[in-house]
Amino acid sequence: MGKIDLENVPVKTGSSYPAPFAAQMGGRGTMRLGDAGGLTQFGANLVILPPGAQSSLRHYHTVEDEFVMVVAGTVTLIQDAGPIEMTAGEFAAFPAGDTDGHHFVNRSDSEARFLVVGTRSGREEAFYSDIDMRAVMDGDAITFTRKDGSPLPPQDTESET
Amino acid sequence: MGKIDLENVPVKTGSSYPAPFAAQMGGRGTMRLGDAGGLTQFGANLVILPPGAQSSLRHYHTVEDEFVMVVAGTVTLIQDAGPIEMTAGEFAAFPAGDTDGHHFVNRSDSEARFLVVGTRSGREEAFYSDIDMRAVMDGDAITFTRKDGSPLPPQDTESET
Repeated sequence: MGKIDLENVPVKTGSSYPAPFAAQMGGRGTMRLGDAGGLTQFGANLVILPPGAQSSLRHYHTVEDEFVMVVAGTVTLIQDAGPIEMTAGEFAAFPAGDTDGHHFVNRSDSEARFLVVGTRSGREEAFYSDIDMRAVMDGDAITFTRKDGSPLPPQDTESET
Repeated sequence: MGKIDLENVPVKTGSSYPAPFAAQMGGRGTMRLGDAGGLTQFGANLVILPPGAQSSLRHYHTVEDEFVMVVAGTVTLIQDAGPIEMTAGEFAAFPAGDTDGHHFVNRSDSEARFLVVGTRSGREEAFYSDIDMRAVMDGDAITFTRKDGSPLPPQDTESET
């Protein structure tokens, strides 16, 4: 491989979160650059956030390191200490096991983009800071439960519309 | 962790290559952003190339994936097929085991910068495309030999100056 042809990398939308959380991820687009380049050991995704969109629910990883570079625009990084703004050319790192959950929200009036790199360990467990949810990733499968491992409460998916 | 304070990330110069190759790496600066952010599973380095500088000798990795984003300026990516220019906002991927060696050279009149991410496997073997050299990395130790594992020829280091 070599240079990645961006014209041939689709912009993915949607979310693997269960209801009602998937509906909170509207607007986010993701280009899987590492996959497009044949990489398997870590993911390298370009995330596109229109105004009002967020990168994910606030979370932390127990197994995999994560690294972010803001590529365009301004995003708000939210952690335990509160929100801070980050602009193009700034970087952030979230080591595995650091329980200070994070996510990025676009509170500006313009599109923002960031590159996010994360290890692919094969098995991962993530915890969501602001809600009682945990995710277990095993290969390509993701299972969401409460933090104690019990099932999430059933959702009235009709109310999402 | 979270946002990385760039003011506190030193710019490293120099090279671990043996003579006479180390002298060919002049001008290159590297900021170890992932290390600064406490990451251990992959390296994430910002490489600063003044005009005329190169990222490395042309090489490929047998164990570790590598990913690049050009952050500022224009660099020339050189692989088997020849040189191509890459500008800010473009990406490249070099999967482990792909024997098409690569490096980046700044042939422009302005400083260029790129972000490079590479897995940290603990043990790695790299081959240099244009010279008879191989590197074996074991933890933090690097050993350079000919491609067949025999010692590199002794160098008259006086001739470097």
